[in-house]
Amino acid sequence: MKLERLVGERFKEKPADCVVDSHGLMVRGGYIKPVANGIFSQYTPLKRVCMKIEKIIREEMDAIDGQEVLFPVVLPAALWDESGRYESVGSELLRFTDRNNSRMILGMTHEEAAVHLVREYANSYTKYPFMIYQIQTKFRDEARPRAGLIRVREFTMKDAYSFHTSQEDLEEYYQKCYDAYNRIFARAGVPEVVAVASDSGMMGGNLSHEYMLLTDIGEDSIAICGECGYKANLEAAECITEKMENGQTEPLTKVHTPDMKTIEEVCAFLKEPADKSCKAVVYQKNSDDEYIVIFIRGDLDVNETKVKNFIGDNIHPAVITDDCDIAAGFIGPVNFKGKAKVLIDNSLKEADNIICGANEADYHYTGMSVKRDVKNAVFGDFAKLFDGGICPCCKKKTISISRGIEVGNIFQLGTKYTKSMNMTYLDKEGKAQYPVMGCYGIGVGRLAASVCEAHHDEYGPVWPMAIAPWQVHLCCLRSDDSAAKECADRLYEELQSRGIEVIYDDRKVRPGVMFSDADLLGVPVRVIISPRNMEESVAELVTRDKSVQEKVAIDKVADKVKELILKLM
Amino acid sequence: MKLERLVGERFKEKPADCVVDSHGLMVRGGYIKPVANGIFSQYTPLKRVCMKIEKIIREEMDAIDGQEVLFPVVLPAALWDESGRYESVGSELLRFTDRNNSRMILGMTHEEAAVHLVREYANSYTKYPFMIYQIQTKFRDEARPRAGLIRVREFTMKDAYSFHTSQEDLEEYYQKCYDAYNRIFARAGVPEVVAVASDSGMMGGNLSHEYMLLTDIGEDSIAICGECGYKANLEAAECITEKMENGQTEPLTKVHTPDMKTIEEVCAFLKEPADKSCKAVVYQKNSDDEYIVIFIRGDLDVNETKVKNFIGDNIHPAVITDDCDIAAGFIGPVNFKGKAKVLIDNSLKEADNIICGANEADYHYTGMSVKRDVKNAVFGDFAKLFDGGICPCCKKKTISISRGIEVGNIFQLGTKYTKSMNMTYLDKEGKAQYPVMGCYGIGVGRLAASVCEAHHDEYGPVWPMAIAPWQVHLCCLRSDDSAAKECADRLYEELQSRGIEVIYDDRKVRPGVMFSDADLLGVPVRVIISPRNMEESVAELVTRDKSVQEKVAIDKVADKVKELILKLM
Repeated sequence: MKLERLVGERFKEKPADCVVDSHGLMVRGGYIKPVANGIFSQYTPLKRVCMKIEKIIREEMDAIDGQEVLFPVVLPAALWDESGRYESVGSELLRFTDRNNSRMILGMTHEEAAVHLVREYANSYTKYPFMIYQIQTKFRDEARPRAGLIRVREFTMKDAYSFHTSQEDLEEYYQKCYDAYNRIFARAGVPEVVAVASDSGMMGGNLSHEYMLLTDIGEDSIAICGECGYKANLEAAECITEKMENGQTEPLTKVHTPDMKTIEEVCAFLKEPADKSCKAVVYQKNSDDEYIVIFIRGDLDVNETKVKNFIGDNIHPAVITDDCDIAAGFIGPVNFKGKAKVLIDNSLKEADNIICGANEADYHYTGMSVKRDVKNAVFGDFAKLFDGGICPCCKKKTISISRGIEVGNIFQLGTKYTKSMNMTYLDKEGKAQYPVMGCYGIGVGRLAASVCEAHHDEYGPVWPMAIAPWQVHLCCLRSDDSAAKECADRLYEELQSRGIEVIYDDRKVRPGVMFSDADLLGVPVRVIISPRNMEESVAELVTRDKSVQEKVAIDKVADKVKELILKLM
Repeated sequence: MKLERLVGERFKEKPADCVVDSHGLMVRGGYIKPVANGIFSQYTPLKRVCMKIEKIIREEMDAIDGQEVLFPVVLPAALWDESGRYESVGSELLRFTDRNNSRMILGMTHEEAAVHLVREYANSYTKYPFMIYQIQTKFRDEARPRAGLIRVREFTMKDAYSFHTSQEDLEEYYQKCYDAYNRIFARAGVPEVVAVASDSGMMGGNLSHEYMLLTDIGEDSIAICGECGYKANLEAAECITEKMENGQTEPLTKVHTPDMKTIEEVCAFLKEPADKSCKAVVYQKNSDDEYIVIFIRGDLDVNETKVKNFIGDNIHPAVITDDCDIAAGFIGPVNFKGKAKVLIDNSLKEADNIICGANEADYHYTGMSVKRDVKNAVFGDFAKLFDGGICPCCKKKTISISRGIEVGNIFQLGTKYTKSMNMTYLDKEGKAQYPVMGCYGIGVGRLAASVCEAHHDEYGPVWPMAIAPWQVHLCCLRSDDSAAKECADRLYEELQSRGIEVIYDDRKVRPGVMFSDADLLGVPVRVIISPRNMEESVAELVTRDKSVQEKVAIDKVADKVKELILKLM
């Protein structure tokens, strides 16, 4: 199409509210327009990028026997009552009533709808396995949308659901999907996306992976082992600690620590390192506000996800009131009498000679030994793995922490949904069984933004050929020059007749404007026709990433362009 | 793909709640599953049909310079406040609040979003004209969803919006779109769809057309002139009546008509035809309950849409209370003193010698002449056109009334939205102007159902090749016969390698089951391999509509199938 007719504004100044590059470039390049907080309209260039991503996803899903279906955006709450998620999911689930006062929700994920669709059909083992998927709008009422298309409230998602008669069969299919995802990201131009072990969160189930584009602007933290290749979302990464050598065992001794409410103050006062101390972190359960006290080595941080998973409920930082018998700032595991569930991180399991609160204002203990001094301890892994920490896989101290954007995820769900929604099949022996499920998601818009994040310069996105809004950007400098204009017009027709997607700029604007617009549209191959080039009967052929910059005889341009497209595809 | 793996149930019995054929066949054929009232999930066969329809729509919209964009499903109420529709549209607009208590709506049409997207961009006359469209999920909280996919609450719709600097330019584009729509319906297999003049309803604007598939199960009534080709939705069709020859003018005479509250009773009692009477129909305005009395010739019915348009408000049948001074059952236009707005249908304009209510219990007048006896009359066209009525175009008595399903519509909106939302551009003289808009919709699922409605038999849909879920249905009767099975397997591979979409049934089921399933899937070309055919080295080639039934040599089947597909495309 002609650039002159392309709806959308392009401009130079980065809007003040755009803190990540892809957001700024997508606003500046006429890709998106905000409609409400975390809700965007898409202009044609982005719509074209997204449709190409969707095509790649479809092909790869079909190649692993996926069947495309369509679930509703608006779902009856009754379905989510069945799974229990109407209650358990927080306010990111948008709930409302329709004109007849029926409770409805906006679908943010479709496990319930998937089970509903196949519950009667898949009543015999002969129907398994199968996978159904959709590409559809979803709504998640995020508290803090951010970074343009990276975290939005409304988005297009591919979500797939597989059904199996055994865990083994699920695992086999899961591996197929794992590989398909790698192909999808590679084809979309981000082969650098890595799969990391992840926490299953509200989805339930056992094993799960997230596909991460590693970038500093990512919202997730990922633990990566430089040695063995272990990769996990920090939320899910096991934290292994060594026993500290704290010298001789000493007796438990109460010391006066007036007004020292943080473990840093106490350690500084007693001239001991933080790893020789025990700190307390207090939460409350969301459901009934019960207090949860985590004791953890003073140099470590609590991983809230691990705590949530351990207690099976959501938590929030505690508000400590007078009647709960918790001496805020002086809490310790020895003779703790507060009204709270007490959990002790594995880092303290073997620890002795430790500083900890004495459960009494202005007092701490020294010389505490967990084994000796703490009764009925409940241990667990509640700590955040850290830079330089021990790899849970190869056990070397080789962990580094990176940040990443989650562009996809795959989950082994087990029977969480089939059991709660009473979906069964008859096995070979005629016995009713619950099928096991897997689910597999990719956010289309977020993937587009991630590719932009991974491939751009200060002037605009550098779209990979496979998902670029157009394949060729044809510029006619000085379209008032009739020879140049005629040549460009002819080339425009010829390229199109060869099935090439061309955006054609024949506006009467300065070359600077033309090129900065072209940079913002990020089309991989640029062809420039100008009066000066005409004198030599050549056109300039330049790739957006500058890897190709050459002059090509006019009558060879179409061939050369076609060749280049195939090479870059 | 293999039919054995196709998710979805097919069965023989029509569900009791399916009153139209397409609904029954789509449930029986594994196309849809209801999730809530008027909300369906789509299985793969329907999803494939819909994607093909969408592809046709995209091609035709792109061919008239449409640019595909994407608007949000969830929109801020503020946008609809701007246009005034947040207030004016009824409870079919689903309103809710998000987690931050912001008022939101589910998009049922996107004029506001379209204006929002281009309001800053299209600030100069040089940017015009342009058209943007999307294919996206919409939600309309219908009071009475019915007939499967014909009237649903959630649906996929193509909605397009064009912007122009003059009414003439809009009209020119409107004609292009009018033609594109005809091509879309023809390509989708329903060339019989007709464009009819329609009422603009809540969309506002002037001229509009609906595309109707004429069928007895349609919800709309359409007036068609067999003579000149005039076609209009009954809601919008002008009703012209001739002056009745009621004999000599007579004096107004009050007659006792005890307990006769209907015009039929009175006419029977006085032995006069209904067209010699005047009846009253009473409504109330939705906004303030003001009474509206329509006087109309006794043999005609009121067209509520015309009344709504005339008074510019929604109306409902009146509840007549004592204090409104309306003598229910005996209302007449002579000396009417009720607290109500009075409108008189054009059918009474020239009428004399008429029976009407005397505004007094148990009394009517005879000999009433509107011109002589009614003061300050407000006339208008408030009558429903009827079978055998006068064509508003050629003026012959050639109107017949048909029923139809609306599968698309196009509207000339004028400046309703650009004015209310303050969208302007600078014209050549640098003067700010409001652009004029057109909008153009097609419901994808409803079109699929309509094609099914138009093309089916008692055994299933007969899909046109262009939108069929697959192109070829390959049946291997007796897949336990190794020669037949090998031949069918080979053909399956060969057809696929030629880019043909094949659904392959190699299940070990009776031919009856196989064929009834094939009928329900409605694939246009069927190829049957069987041991008996193998003996003759042939396959049977049958079209779903039975127009082709022949035996073809095995090694010619793929060629013949390819040929048939191209012919049917």
